[in-house]
Amino acid sequence: MPELRRDPVVGRWVIIDSEHLKTPKDFPKDDNTPIRQAICPFCPGREHQTPPEVDAVRPSGSAANSPGWLVRTVPNKFPVLGSEGEFKKEGAGIYDQMSGIGAHEVVIEGPDHDKNLDQLTAEEMRAVIGQYGSRFRQLSQDSRFKYIVIFKNFGESAGATIEHPHSQIIALPMVPKTVLEELKGTEYYYQYHGRCVLCDIISQEYHDKERIVAENTSFLAFCPYAPRYCFETWIIPKGHSADFAGADDQTQFHLAQILQDVLKKVKKALGNPSYNYYLHTAPLGYANPACYHWHIEIIPKLTRSVGFEWGTGLHIVPTFPQDAARYLREA
Amino acid sequence: MPELRRDPVVGRWVIIDSEHLKTPKDFPKDDNTPIRQAICPFCPGREHQTPPEVDAVRPSGSAANSPGWLVRTVPNKFPVLGSEGEFKKEGAGIYDQMSGIGAHEVVIEGPDHDKNLDQLTAEEMRAVIGQYGSRFRQLSQDSRFKYIVIFKNFGESAGATIEHPHSQIIALPMVPKTVLEELKGTEYYYQYHGRCVLCDIISQEYHDKERIVAENTSFLAFCPYAPRYCFETWIIPKGHSADFAGADDQTQFHLAQILQDVLKKVKKALGNPSYNYYLHTAPLGYANPACYHWHIEIIPKLTRSVGFEWGTGLHIVPTFPQDAARYLREA
Repeated sequence: MPELRRDPVVGRWVIIDSEHLKTPKDFPKDDNTPIRQAICPFCPGREHQTPPEVDAVRPSGSAANSPGWLVRTVPNKFPVLGSEGEFKKEGAGIYDQMSGIGAHEVVIEGPDHDKNLDQLTAEEMRAVIGQYGSRFRQLSQDSRFKYIVIFKNFGESAGATIEHPHSQIIALPMVPKTVLEELKGTEYYYQYHGRCVLCDIISQEYHDKERIVAENTSFLAFCPYAPRYCFETWIIPKGHSADFAGADDQTQFHLAQILQDVLKKVKKALGNPSYNYYLHTAPLGYANPACYHWHIEIIPKLTRSVGFEWGTGLHIVPTFPQDAARYLREA
Repeated sequence: MPELRRDPVVGRWVIIDSEHLKTPKDFPKDDNTPIRQAICPFCPGREHQTPPEVDAVRPSGSAANSPGWLVRTVPNKFPVLGSEGEFKKEGAGIYDQMSGIGAHEVVIEGPDHDKNLDQLTAEEMRAVIGQYGSRFRQLSQDSRFKYIVIFKNFGESAGATIEHPHSQIIALPMVPKTVLEELKGTEYYYQYHGRCVLCDIISQEYHDKERIVAENTSFLAFCPYAPRYCFETWIIPKGHSADFAGADDQTQFHLAQILQDVLKKVKKALGNPSYNYYLHTAPLGYANPACYHWHIEIIPKLTRSVGFEWGTGLHIVPTFPQDAARYLREA
């Protein structure tokens, strides 16, 4: 008998398809072996092929837009939102629209075309997370923005169009739907229980143990009870914290450590799959920080969503999260 | 400047990426040329390779599970929900689960392996819709079920695993998330305006004209103002109606007509792409039929959702719906 499980944050039910269970060997393999592109615009020496950098970590003290950087952030050459122009909201009959004002940046995670996050040194990995933090804080100064999302697409089937390892940051003029749903769910739980649901999830995960993937001083990594995707893994600060911007140097260091640890496990257990991750944090200026708890969601790209999932929002997941966690833990 | 548009039913914002617009020729082409499989379990003469049929249209009067059918419905051999067993809901610490009770059926749309819906005769197409209706009404008698979804995956990249044209019907023990969101939005709009939002959308579409794809006596087909996907098209009854089960013979005939018309246009404008469609109707026993309005959503599979969409629920759509509608209208 398949099992229906409910995500306690947003109330989404998922089907654990226990009659057709899949293990790592059952998923088609992506070929994510890097091919050094002779013309990669993100490689050192080609800094002029990107828009001028907005931030960088340069231990060598080299000049902006020249080689010698460890991490480098540039505006996306093909942004999905525009940074210039007037912000307008207007009606169109019964419909609503607003101008697509925002920011869209690319964090180039290192000078080496062939080294993804899992292969960086601890110092390099920390520089990437540090850059996430400094760009987040910088963009949050712009009063036009209501939300900032940091995400990474790795591998072609996860949507990466440039091979050189990079993340993206998008600042939005409104809070996106998925986050609104999380806020609504966390606020509702807080009203009822007087506690943060994600803090309660952490306690439950320590109690149940079987879905834990990794942990360190500041963070827990686990496969959620009601995942949408096989091998979905969340990384969450152990202590309550609504806002990623509040992460201090030591917390950032611990985040770098556990994120790299989990990405290594994903690669080892699943054979270098394509994946996405994104960071969910409170909206800028959020009024109820006691309710929300920032975290990262990592989604290895192993299956394809089809009509049924789109039409219902009901995901069918052929791997129990405790089995996924065990494969990752033991990788 | 890109444009942000809000769907008036569920409140979802989408980005119309007007800086990188795409027309039909800009999407990669799927090869959906049928290959007659020597071993197709849905072809006539192999009726014993499926579970015994639960319904069929047999103008020849032939016996169940033998050739001579026009449409044939069988239980899915690999159901995502189980039909037997006790229905239980229980807690697991802070989490909730229930048994995966449901029904999962396959509507084989015709005896011919190579003829998809767009190639059927009017009578054959009507038999398919008639079968949707009779299975819907039959399944809705089972008090364990709260919702029935009818959908079709066509083409490999839309998730079809068997080539022979077929649709699927899944009966669920709860109302899925996407429908709950629609109900919440339509009820909210009704409370405020005292009108059905989808009726108002129909009026607006007639007023604006530019997003209309096709119409007949009973139905309107249009590209929604704030689509999630390029060339997304909805088919909706012109008169208010919450429940697909209430569609009489004539309405079913008109639905068959317009659905086939739109699928022909999709094929012609976009080169036989993979697609999904699904029917959204009120939950079984829904108490507020004045608020809801059933419809079909058709999603040609032209682009790939990536980390940003998953992480935010904010879709990026590089085609204006009025342009998509024009391409479809003129096809």
